[in-house]
Amino acid sequence: MKMSAISLRDIRSFHVGGAAVELTGQPSQDVRVSPDAAPRTVDLNGHYISGQLYAQHFMLENRGSEVPILFWHGGAMTGVTWETTPDDRAGWSQFFLRKGYDVVVSDAVERGRSSWSPYPQIYDSAPLFRTAEDAWYLFRMGEAKDFGQRRPYLGQRFPIESFDQLCAQFVPRWTTNAEASISAYMHLISRFERVIVVAHSQGGWFAQTLAARLPERIAAVVLLEPAGAPNLSKDDLIKAAHVPHYYIWGDNCDSHNAWKTYKSDAILHSETLRDLGGYVEVMDLPKYGIYGNSHMPMMDNNSDEIATMVADWLRRDIH
Amino acid sequence: MKMSAISLRDIRSFHVGGAAVELTGQPSQDVRVSPDAAPRTVDLNGHYISGQLYAQHFMLENRGSEVPILFWHGGAMTGVTWETTPDDRAGWSQFFLRKGYDVVVSDAVERGRSSWSPYPQIYDSAPLFRTAEDAWYLFRMGEAKDFGQRRPYLGQRFPIESFDQLCAQFVPRWTTNAEASISAYMHLISRFERVIVVAHSQGGWFAQTLAARLPERIAAVVLLEPAGAPNLSKDDLIKAAHVPHYYIWGDNCDSHNAWKTYKSDAILHSETLRDLGGYVEVMDLPKYGIYGNSHMPMMDNNSDEIATMVADWLRRDIH
Repeated sequence: MKMSAISLRDIRSFHVGGAAVELTGQPSQDVRVSPDAAPRTVDLNGHYISGQLYAQHFMLENRGSEVPILFWHGGAMTGVTWETTPDDRAGWSQFFLRKGYDVVVSDAVERGRSSWSPYPQIYDSAPLFRTAEDAWYLFRMGEAKDFGQRRPYLGQRFPIESFDQLCAQFVPRWTTNAEASISAYMHLISRFERVIVVAHSQGGWFAQTLAARLPERIAAVVLLEPAGAPNLSKDDLIKAAHVPHYYIWGDNCDSHNAWKTYKSDAILHSETLRDLGGYVEVMDLPKYGIYGNSHMPMMDNNSDEIATMVADWLRRDIH
Repeated sequence: MKMSAISLRDIRSFHVGGAAVELTGQPSQDVRVSPDAAPRTVDLNGHYISGQLYAQHFMLENRGSEVPILFWHGGAMTGVTWETTPDDRAGWSQFFLRKGYDVVVSDAVERGRSSWSPYPQIYDSAPLFRTAEDAWYLFRMGEAKDFGQRRPYLGQRFPIESFDQLCAQFVPRWTTNAEASISAYMHLISRFERVIVVAHSQGGWFAQTLAARLPERIAAVVLLEPAGAPNLSKDDLIKAAHVPHYYIWGDNCDSHNAWKTYKSDAILHSETLRDLGGYVEVMDLPKYGIYGNSHMPMMDNNSDEIATMVADWLRRDIH
């Protein structure tokens, strides 16, 4: 199927947030930057920009909404989450461009093009790495024991034959940079009058947090399987309840203890927002007869169908 | 000035190259991936994809050339090099899209969205970090002693007021992954029938190397201040001489010992290619009356002028 062209007036990228940090007392090194190049002395003492976030902003020639969509990926991933699917179909960033939204795809602090800082000198801890085995089970491709055979859950919608392409997207992450990430996301949001945030997994945790910090700027948050919910004060919950929340849950959430807990925490959060007068919709897909979605609904074989549900909700109730 | 719209039939991103590597014997950890989330056990033993490269491919609705341009950045940087300039002007990726070329912007192995692997378990060495001080002098913004005052060389064309935005782009790098990078670049090139490679600094070293490996697929290499030249065998030099080479050098190259050496090595290489019958042009900008360019001509205030020189050469002599 030939897709319609996307006409862009501009594509801008930038780093936002972060600050200069100085390192002192580090030893200097002689380094060859290419195998045949002459060595040169590298002095690690000096200034680094730390805590910044990279974003790529696609601006349509003729947009259908004045409110752009900000895409926030999950843990150990980057903005690539929203681009092409692992089996080479157009991802959600293209889908929503074709729906008339300007889109902003960012890498979280310390991930991908946002860069990361020396540890333990600047970051407090060492990075974590995601294995294919961990992702197989945590992202609910199949039972842990079935990784070797790559045997997925019955009716699995993730394109399992492209699982290695998903693993190629994983980046190291830290668990001690939440405040830096929140700060950079606040800077990102503040570049726009109003935004819609579409967030996945750990990004959903950040989005639920930011809803309480900048409710006047966030037209809606769309949460794809958020990794739990922040522990907000009553005052913050009241602020967050001003922002419409749309939750999406895939299948087999009960098959992994982490997801049982994340999901029940996030559902509790969503019910609290609703009790406070918030507008909350929860699309627990299997309850609507949509089975087989993994933790990656933007990559599953019904990714366009789920995106259409989100687009319909936005058009009907938001912008 | 309002720029013309860019009409794209597709934007595809992908990872290419690399292979699965298994780690064993690592201790497992209990980790909270968000501050308020329940902890879960992370097992670092298992498989990782290592050595892959991320690329974003912009495909025009109506292209003027069948040969796409591949943009390869320099050391401690990512594909962001080619996007928006630090002072928020359209970069070379947009410039060449508007000239009718499909463009492919990639992050080198281990940089940006390409991800990096655990060390010392998978990589042989520890990463290097680039300080603002190092970049100030090495990228020839001004004398090392003038970093504090941000006092640039007279006539400096880099937008010095945006120097921190440049520093925000820096990512850690390793010096022991050259073969992995060359392999991934070969995979990238092999996805296309023929390509033009536009490469900066360390990327220029890789581009000069790849010209000898895949001369039949490379229509031309454009080298912006390559960090020296590879030490090729006579046979490889003969192969590389089949590929047109276009070199660009900025100003003040004699002010830094590394650049004196890199430039003289690359000029020797280019003269060898010419002696072997190769088509080589060398644009030493000050010799043509263009003064004040830094190591980042794609970001300097005459970035469009330099891009136009490249586009004219490509149109006249290549594609």
